[in-house]
Amino acid sequence: MDGMNAMDAPLAGVAMHPLRQIADRRGAVLHMLRADAPWFSGFGEVYFSEVALGAIKAWKRHLRMTQYFAVPVGRIRLVLWDDRPDSTTRGATQVIELGRPESYMLVIVPPRLWYGFTAIGSGPALLSNCANMAHDPAESERMELHEAADRIPYRWEA
Amino acid sequence: MDGMNAMDAPLAGVAMHPLRQIADRRGAVLHMLRADAPWFSGFGEVYFSEVALGAIKAWKRHLRMTQYFAVPVGRIRLVLWDDRPDSTTRGATQVIELGRPESYMLVIVPPRLWYGFTAIGSGPALLSNCANMAHDPAESERMELHEAADRIPYRWEA
Repeated sequence: MDGMNAMDAPLAGVAMHPLRQIADRRGAVLHMLRADAPWFSGFGEVYFSEVALGAIKAWKRHLRMTQYFAVPVGRIRLVLWDDRPDSTTRGATQVIELGRPESYMLVIVPPRLWYGFTAIGSGPALLSNCANMAHDPAESERMELHEAADRIPYRWEA
Repeated sequence: MDGMNAMDAPLAGVAMHPLRQIADRRGAVLHMLRADAPWFSGFGEVYFSEVALGAIKAWKRHLRMTQYFAVPVGRIRLVLWDDRPDSTTRGATQVIELGRPESYMLVIVPPRLWYGFTAIGSGPALLSNCANMAHDPAESERMELHEAADRIPYRWEA
């Protein structure tokens, strides 16, 4: 269930890129996204989602937004579920664990994938999303955990 | 010396905008920058600078980059010094303290201002910079602390 495990097949359209961490005794510089990266698709908004240890933020999907996630603080388990009728990986889930230093990377989540995340480290975590469009409630959908229990083949740990 | 103090006059071209913090028992959502903000001037790169408690990252300036700073984790004292020959605030310093919840804001630092920062909270801090151009070492300059001691009228606490 570890996203860094090669056994965990990626869903169609999901990409992961290792990010540079420039060590410094005063504190590291942590790359996230540049406009000249081959995978950059436009800037709409950058914001942060703090996650209390053990809290679950799930489920949600965007209809048009591509999300670019990085976790500079703490440790997050990100779970993706593919319900796209036209996808070669329809029905599959993907679990990705994000956190420094060994799993500091950019995860690109295309539109129409359901996603959720939880903080699994020793304290709260911070997820940054540099999305290719600004927040627009009209293009996102939510599914409550109790509703997802019958639809999404993933069980969050208690 | 508190940037939220109205006595601390801003340097020419520096702007501060309060940022929304959407409270949630699972962890807050923290706004930073949208492409449709009136103060947005383009996206070049977003990255993070971690600052160990008490560590000083100073001094540096960019010749062309406009920086957009926010501090989602911890507490930072940001110090700016104006050495621009054509500036109405030449010679002045500005001290801004950044951190949640009461000082969560976007600070826009125009090119050619010298800047430095230190973590002043109870632990490490994270500064995010969503800059209007990607990192280019050819357009930035550094000044070591011992060199700045003779030039910049600001003393970092020991």
